[in-house]
Amino acid sequence: MTDTLTTNIKHLLTALVLQGVHDFVVSPGSRTTPIALLLAEMQKLRDDVRVTVDVDERSAAFFSLGIAKTTHQPVALLATSGTATGNYLPAIMEASISHIPLIALTTDRPQELQEVGAPQTVHQANLYGDHTKSFTAITVQDNNEDVTDYIDYRVQELVGLAMTKPAGPIQINLPLRKPLMPILGETWPTVATQQILVGQQQMGWQNVQALAALLRKPKAMMLLGPDEVGWNIAKLKQLAAHYQLPVLADVLSNFRPSEYAISGIDSLLAADVIKDDLKPEVVIRFGGTPVSAKVTAWLRDAKITVVQIGQEHAGHDHARHAQTTVIADTDAVVADLLAEPGVRKATFLEQWQKVSATLLSLTMKTDEQGAEYQIPAALADLPENGQLFIANSMPIRDMDNYYVPNHSIKIAANRGANGIDGTISSAFGMAMTGKPTTLLTGDLTLFHDMNGLMLSHQAHVPLTIVVVNNQGGGIFSFLPQAAAKAYFEPMFGTPLPIVIERIARLYDAEYKSVDDLNLLYELVHKPATRLRIIEVKSNREQNVVAHQKLTQAIKEALS
Amino acid sequence: MTDTLTTNIKHLLTALVLQGVHDFVVSPGSRTTPIALLLAEMQKLRDDVRVTVDVDERSAAFFSLGIAKTTHQPVALLATSGTATGNYLPAIMEASISHIPLIALTTDRPQELQEVGAPQTVHQANLYGDHTKSFTAITVQDNNEDVTDYIDYRVQELVGLAMTKPAGPIQINLPLRKPLMPILGETWPTVATQQILVGQQQMGWQNVQALAALLRKPKAMMLLGPDEVGWNIAKLKQLAAHYQLPVLADVLSNFRPSEYAISGIDSLLAADVIKDDLKPEVVIRFGGTPVSAKVTAWLRDAKITVVQIGQEHAGHDHARHAQTTVIADTDAVVADLLAEPGVRKATFLEQWQKVSATLLSLTMKTDEQGAEYQIPAALADLPENGQLFIANSMPIRDMDNYYVPNHSIKIAANRGANGIDGTISSAFGMAMTGKPTTLLTGDLTLFHDMNGLMLSHQAHVPLTIVVVNNQGGGIFSFLPQAAAKAYFEPMFGTPLPIVIERIARLYDAEYKSVDDLNLLYELVHKPATRLRIIEVKSNREQNVVAHQKLTQAIKEALS
Repeated sequence: MTDTLTTNIKHLLTALVLQGVHDFVVSPGSRTTPIALLLAEMQKLRDDVRVTVDVDERSAAFFSLGIAKTTHQPVALLATSGTATGNYLPAIMEASISHIPLIALTTDRPQELQEVGAPQTVHQANLYGDHTKSFTAITVQDNNEDVTDYIDYRVQELVGLAMTKPAGPIQINLPLRKPLMPILGETWPTVATQQILVGQQQMGWQNVQALAALLRKPKAMMLLGPDEVGWNIAKLKQLAAHYQLPVLADVLSNFRPSEYAISGIDSLLAADVIKDDLKPEVVIRFGGTPVSAKVTAWLRDAKITVVQIGQEHAGHDHARHAQTTVIADTDAVVADLLAEPGVRKATFLEQWQKVSATLLSLTMKTDEQGAEYQIPAALADLPENGQLFIANSMPIRDMDNYYVPNHSIKIAANRGANGIDGTISSAFGMAMTGKPTTLLTGDLTLFHDMNGLMLSHQAHVPLTIVVVNNQGGGIFSFLPQAAAKAYFEPMFGTPLPIVIERIARLYDAEYKSVDDLNLLYELVHKPATRLRIIEVKSNREQNVVAHQKLTQAIKEALS
Repeated sequence: MTDTLTTNIKHLLTALVLQGVHDFVVSPGSRTTPIALLLAEMQKLRDDVRVTVDVDERSAAFFSLGIAKTTHQPVALLATSGTATGNYLPAIMEASISHIPLIALTTDRPQELQEVGAPQTVHQANLYGDHTKSFTAITVQDNNEDVTDYIDYRVQELVGLAMTKPAGPIQINLPLRKPLMPILGETWPTVATQQILVGQQQMGWQNVQALAALLRKPKAMMLLGPDEVGWNIAKLKQLAAHYQLPVLADVLSNFRPSEYAISGIDSLLAADVIKDDLKPEVVIRFGGTPVSAKVTAWLRDAKITVVQIGQEHAGHDHARHAQTTVIADTDAVVADLLAEPGVRKATFLEQWQKVSATLLSLTMKTDEQGAEYQIPAALADLPENGQLFIANSMPIRDMDNYYVPNHSIKIAANRGANGIDGTISSAFGMAMTGKPTTLLTGDLTLFHDMNGLMLSHQAHVPLTIVVVNNQGGGIFSFLPQAAAKAYFEPMFGTPLPIVIERIARLYDAEYKSVDDLNLLYELVHKPATRLRIIEVKSNREQNVVAHQKLTQAIKEALS
């Protein structure tokens, strides 16, 4: 029996899977019916298909983002027609900037219901504007035989487009006409796989030699921003060793721990203790915009030679600190540089190592009330093979400065657009690997995506959430806004009268309140077995004072 | 002392207020700083400015929608740059279709930080595509003297544009460069008010006479869809009396209760009990797409003459049931028709009244377990001067069929795109009038916008939420999807393991679980003093059976 709707949706779904889409995140509705049902059937038939249901589309999209960020594979989203599709926009924006291949399948009403007052019908054509790489509309209910072939070919090509570097999200809009019920229990078609290989862009041997010569200079350095694409970290560490480079390694570079990793650059620059002898002659930079805003400004102001390399971000330079942009793949460049002669002297490296060690020891010694900068050390001993998602605002800043894990773990954050939205959901997406996963977040960010906690039931993966509760937007206490005392609390501090323990109870989570960071250290070492929320109560004012004192101590120790 | 940033933002805010923007809903961030602080100062100085802070931008936008829907005045939204702005899209979509004048003020990074890897920077130009009526970028930090004049004039014009019928949302993007601190405590400028009067479109006397002649036919009828613009209901009731018209009054028409109002048309059509003698010769239709999908299909299939009138929806006719479209203001047309001769006979009206009364009595008599159609009657005695917001999916359908309030109350729902998102927030927006407000919702819709509950703290208005908890998406049990038993619960039923009482505890709400609908009747009559959640436990299967039995009873009584 042939049914055009059923046949073509099977082709569409199979084409997606053939190109590496293994995770589907569905927010059910009426219009999604045929796709959702056939997805459920496909999940039953294939081991390589996983379907997660999340009724909140905003959360579903950030969850997909977290999965794709961790696996570096495309993830498909399915939404019903109408405002549901609009809820994807924040995560699509983040995916666009951080080069994550999301495939947004937006179901729609058929053309005869457009713009005539039909319910759940909005303009869905090119809905996400230039936040998606491509928009395609596919009418699956068209029994012309070329359409099935077209779906096989075009859908596979579209996934290839999403994966082509720089990767990014795409939208496929699917108008569907009633009746919407597919035929279940029939055989599935075989779809021919389109071989799509995304190549590596090389920099050319002359350029490689010139760059290697720069790196052999006595004061060469490496700056690693956030890793989006899943670098070969072992090779990057070899590169540092090969040229004896101190590496300003962003917390999101996945380069820490390493004897070459220098952390705390933002803190060192804030304390103004980088002396002339620490100034590099040349810096080779990989990755996205560093968490530290000060580091690129410093490189620019100190007129240091910077070579920025990568296919995602090279040329994107809001601090205008790089004189040379190399549009080529990081891994390819690293391999080429390893084939060139290296160096054996390590004086410059040792100088930087000393400064970095001093900084970290200072964060340990102080015994300040509410010093949130001590939380990173308490998270150092996450489970082996563990993963860590870091919320924006204060957590990412403190972690970038002071976090050195005991062993290598995968670390991620939403650092494309740096929003606080969708953080819980993205952390759950990361946890879908099955590896023990921890999220560090503030209370405001937790609240913003509280619905994401529902994923503990829907995605069936455990997650540890460490929430630093300082009753509101801690970051603003560090900014000039703090001077506007009359309006500060309602407009910036925005304290929320939310009791974290009650959130835990609502979602049947394990809950612990922790005063002692040594206890936190031990707690997080043990993987969670279900949703676990650990609250660390803090205080915005005390935290500001503690940070100021730390800066003073750094000045005294290193000036 | 003159500071361009401070001066121009004061002009911008004053221009908005002069054109009727009295509510500002702020989601704080760093980039919003100068506007948020000056708004806070303006609120202190002026009685006609109210600022509400909501950290979740999605909720903030739906809250604004609720305010504007109730007051029929423009409401301004303020978001920080980045993904924050993307969270507005669902509510902007709804505002676009239901003609609500939202003014989205999106702060942005300055041009030199665009597309170069700067944090919290996304493409914000024309962000909402054709979901907004207009996009304007205003650089306030430009000390050319013409700019201040331009802001005075252009911002006022833009509010006028948003209010021009059909009304709708607009976006004003505001790139801001650091330093962001405005100067507080200085005098505010005087801005000249631009007189913008939005006129009424008339239909012309010849057309009025022809229409009046139609309405004098023995079997003329009126169909009132949802009222978006705030009709003069008293005049509409006079019109029904003047021509003795039975009125198929949508629950959102604000026309109920009235001796002329016929409710339950969808239920009557489902039971197939509209006999030939009840068939109208001519129907005059006002308002948006009716909640009942069956009524317009019936008018089309029975080839009944339909004249559709209005400035928002006339010509929007997805059932293609109207042969004549009159693009003119409802109130103006009503006034014109009242000036024409009416009729005195009421036979047709009485026939319809009898059918409607029979239907309602049947919903009272049955004593089914889990019959959600009995909930409408339990909400009949809301406080005098009360307001009611109705969630989509099952609640709006049951209410449209069976709700007749004891006295006139204002009723609203998000029936532009019929999404379930943002419902709690929109209800809080409605409650901002200060009148006692009740929301009727299902559990899935409650969950989708759970963050909206935070408005009980931020907006300082009480709200009663009646949540019909049938553990998931009740509506799907009525649709063909219910046949796919193997996949039904995870893909459509989507039961959420959420305990409503714990939600209440999280938000410090008063909580009651109610089995007895008589008790519900009494409870909702008393206005809430803070957030009050009343849970009515239901069961999806029982509810389907009960509805089927009701249809059978209607058939037996009226065939």
